[in-house]
Amino acid sequence: MERVAIIGASMTQFGKREGWLSDLLAEAALDCLDDANVEPSELEHLYTSNMASGEFEGQTGIMNMLAHDLGAMPAYTQRIDQTSSSGAAGAYAAWQSVASGASDLTLLVGGEKMTHRSTGESTDVIASITHPVEYKHGVTLPSFAGLTARLYLDTYDAPRESLGKVAVKNHKNGVDNPHAQFQKEVSLEEVLESPIVADPLRLYDFCPITDGSGALLMCPESKAEEYTDDYVLLTGIAGATDTQVVHERDDPTVMGGVVESSREAYEMSGRDPDDIDVAELHDMFTILEFLQSEDLGFFEKGEGWKAVEEGVTDRDGELPINTSGGLKSKGHPLGASGVAQIYEIYQQIRGEAGPRQVEADVGLACNVGGFGNCVLTAIMEGPQ
Amino acid sequence: MERVAIIGASMTQFGKREGWLSDLLAEAALDCLDDANVEPSELEHLYTSNMASGEFEGQTGIMNMLAHDLGAMPAYTQRIDQTSSSGAAGAYAAWQSVASGASDLTLLVGGEKMTHRSTGESTDVIASITHPVEYKHGVTLPSFAGLTARLYLDTYDAPRESLGKVAVKNHKNGVDNPHAQFQKEVSLEEVLESPIVADPLRLYDFCPITDGSGALLMCPESKAEEYTDDYVLLTGIAGATDTQVVHERDDPTVMGGVVESSREAYEMSGRDPDDIDVAELHDMFTILEFLQSEDLGFFEKGEGWKAVEEGVTDRDGELPINTSGGLKSKGHPLGASGVAQIYEIYQQIRGEAGPRQVEADVGLACNVGGFGNCVLTAIMEGPQ
Repeated sequence: MERVAIIGASMTQFGKREGWLSDLLAEAALDCLDDANVEPSELEHLYTSNMASGEFEGQTGIMNMLAHDLGAMPAYTQRIDQTSSSGAAGAYAAWQSVASGASDLTLLVGGEKMTHRSTGESTDVIASITHPVEYKHGVTLPSFAGLTARLYLDTYDAPRESLGKVAVKNHKNGVDNPHAQFQKEVSLEEVLESPIVADPLRLYDFCPITDGSGALLMCPESKAEEYTDDYVLLTGIAGATDTQVVHERDDPTVMGGVVESSREAYEMSGRDPDDIDVAELHDMFTILEFLQSEDLGFFEKGEGWKAVEEGVTDRDGELPINTSGGLKSKGHPLGASGVAQIYEIYQQIRGEAGPRQVEADVGLACNVGGFGNCVLTAIMEGPQ
Repeated sequence: MERVAIIGASMTQFGKREGWLSDLLAEAALDCLDDANVEPSELEHLYTSNMASGEFEGQTGIMNMLAHDLGAMPAYTQRIDQTSSSGAAGAYAAWQSVASGASDLTLLVGGEKMTHRSTGESTDVIASITHPVEYKHGVTLPSFAGLTARLYLDTYDAPRESLGKVAVKNHKNGVDNPHAQFQKEVSLEEVLESPIVADPLRLYDFCPITDGSGALLMCPESKAEEYTDDYVLLTGIAGATDTQVVHERDDPTVMGGVVESSREAYEMSGRDPDDIDVAELHDMFTILEFLQSEDLGFFEKGEGWKAVEEGVTDRDGELPINTSGGLKSKGHPLGASGVAQIYEIYQQIRGEAGPRQVEADVGLACNVGGFGNCVLTAIMEGPQ
């Protein structure tokens, strides 16, 4: 099977944005095409990852709108939704389009426009990601996070402060990311004194509601050098589901979708956890960074919190995690988040991460749909 | 590139159905798996094609719900949306998952649940498929159909009755389809005297609003015989966009997406229009059957209406079109329609179409998104 190269990538400013989703998608698309010096008319497939433009904006058919706005016709379009992991699902779909031979040049553009709706309206849409036997009774994503955090702290004798330190670390990284929604540090005290949302988690344990978009341009490795010498290979990518009903899981501190998707991605890339130099994890809630860092095989089960306490996952640590600022400080526009994770790894491998730069030959991104209902893991490296 | 086989297929009863979309998806999925004697736990990828479950039901994450309901975890899931051509887009995504080597066994389940909403609510969602510069002023899909029908009749000197004969033919075929929403004939007089919707088109020129689901199971050709000797190859599949703003098209009687997607699908399969023995076209409006039959290369431009008048596209004609009853009589549950088109061709090639059976070695399905904003063409044949 021929390998697939990422030859261009971009993200827009994340945060509260004016205009329509289609504006954000076009902005990211044009930046990405510029990055690779490609014209829209060259595109064969043009994929859009987005969870809910119909619900948030009352506008469907956004993938066809994007083709029109770019002048990319007759490029084939589709929209890919995998809830909060739509971005990585779109990257997997783009990978499949190239690896199957269906397209020699595929642009994926992920995005979401949410902040124009009230928090209640947005969270109503997001709650319905999970199973009605749970969310109809008020057990929504933040509730799962609180319950899981409590179970984790109790089971592994972890201090509450360790969760807060995830937020502190990721906000610190976000200061140096000009695209991040929050470019400011938070202190441990501020996290621990912020309003309670779902005990033991507080407001600063949660990512914000965000508008934004990102894009990735892919082609077969054999054609990559026609565009750039500095491409990044997507050497491993896979996804896996876990139970949709969270209370059916044997051990809710284990994310089965992370375990299984990473097992497949490691096998596909010929890499193992020790090879990973930098990782972007899905810290929609601080507790999720612990769980993923363990279920990806970086740390023993129940030891992820110690890695944060000991600075292992700091930017100057042995395995920097969320150098971009993570969802926590960068923001979480559902259809764009997984794309932005891959964009950060792409920049790190190309040595273009500026003040956030770490030493990285191989990187990993893990994008979580719902409360681990479906998870994707992607592994990237340079062409050597 | 290894070819991809369809080793199982199914559709549910189309029409007004009780329950939730997830019930319909599970029903089609289980029937399809039964058809191939496959267990849900064997699935590697499980794709869902659906346009708007969030808008119609307030439920998102339906692809993960389906994995859970089937017990198919850890199979990877995603939802594919390409508006009214979501079904064929899902088939293309499933094809890509197998052809890329990402999955050796992919189930696509397409569906939509719409009839519980008022016609106004449904058509509001559907109107937003097209561009706001048109639909905000009331120029919605039925309006485009009426305008295009008038232009076609005037340009090609076709009689109004020829449009009505599409409805008569497809309803006649639908009588023999036990899954069709309408299993009854209509007379030309009934069509021509039904209420005006968008002049010159009347109520019986339009497909109904429908609930339903369908499924397709795919694997590499080299593994197909492990499941069945009677598989069907998906030898050509492609999609193409046209302008999202319909009034920007040079000639609105030409569907650019049909022209381009079929050109690619013919090339991929090594077939040409003369090889096609049976076809399922997207007769959401009667006029669309004329346009597609011409733009697919079956008939000269402006001659499609004569083929219907002369009985060429009847079940016992030279090129039977819409033996299933078409969207017109079978119904049009957006995410399922393209799947059901492929299911009809699958049955025709396997010789399982019962009273609808025609002689067919090679078949074609054409699924139209919006008003030709994105179109997919698929070509199928037996394994000889």
